Amino acid sequence: MSVANELEAANTEYAASFSKGHLELPPRRKVAIVACMDARLDPARALGLEEGDAHVIRNAGGRATDALRSIIISQQLLGTREIVIVHHTDCGMLTFTDEVIRSKIQSELHQNADHIAFLPFGDLNQSVLDDIRVLREHPLVLDVPITGYLYEVETGRIANVGENALSGVDS
Amino acid sequence: MSVANELEAANTEYAASFSKGHLELPPRRKVAIVACMDARLDPARALGLEEGDAHVIRNAGGRATDALRSIIISQQLLGTREIVIVHHTDCGMLTFTDEVIRSKIQSELHQNADHIAFLPFGDLNQSVLDDIRVLREHPLVLDVPITGYLYEVETGRIANVGENALSGVDS
Repeated sequence: MSVANELEAANTEYAASFSKGHLELPPRRKVAIVACMDARLDPARALGLEEGDAHVIRNAGGRATDALRSIIISQQLLGTREIVIVHHTDCGMLTFTDEVIRSKIQSELHQNADHIAFLPFGDLNQSVLDDIRVLREHPLVLDVPITGYLYEVETGRIANVGENALSGVDS
Repeated sequence: MSVANELEAANTEYAASFSKGHLELPPRRKVAIVACMDARLDPARALGLEEGDAHVIRNAGGRATDALRSIIISQQLLGTREIVIVHHTDCGMLTFTDEVIRSKIQSELHQNADHIAFLPFGDLNQSVLDDIRVLREHPLVLDVPITGYLYEVETGRIANVGENALSGVDS
């Protein structure tokens, strides 16, 4: 049985007790979360988000560069006015380099992946600060509050890594 | 008060009752979910995912093209062997075109966004089928089961839109 079948069974239960009423398309709390795809991180549970509250953008590493298209749509068409970035301890992005994954793909799939930047990083706090800066300096991203966190997969806690208020002051 | 402060308060509660023990980095159920960032969709609750179960990749529309870097990392480095795509009813991606958002950005931000493909779509079922095909045909994506769903934001239900088993048979 594929996992998809199990997900369908779980969804039947979810839908049976679904009572959200009508939720609006624009996020109620006007925030876009950018988080890693990591299996151990559940942004909704860890940050207290209910259905309808926030855009949640997730990718390998929670990288801002890879989230730009989504953030621009979120701000321009759906009214979000705050960004929260969440990276986490023990991230897979710490464990490889572009060269490592490109070599693996070359030897196992016999394909060239030199055209893909996989965006790994070597320092967790710095990766959050780098991503805040990418968004802060991008001409298509609005000047909104951006806060960066490091989620501890061991404890469930988030630690504030960097915060830029509307004034552009670094903390 | 920024939303970030509220998220921190919610996280304090989450961490206080955190009892997941040690979770492994590779997703336990070996599946990568590709879903829309929409606020009304909570993939974990709607699909019965626990912390540690699955990679969750989310972007505007749940588009496969935008998820490729993450999917390749998920498969090559973290062992996932199944993909589930989730688009949803009343999606914001149905409401605009590249021309519309580019014009808005030009007139409001005085910036040119012609270099960004925002990946909107006109048909929900077709967008799921298109994204299954993108992954099925991509040389850097493994030949794994891919299932596509349409999530109904009105009812919480998922409907199976297209499924390709390992054999490559379309349902």
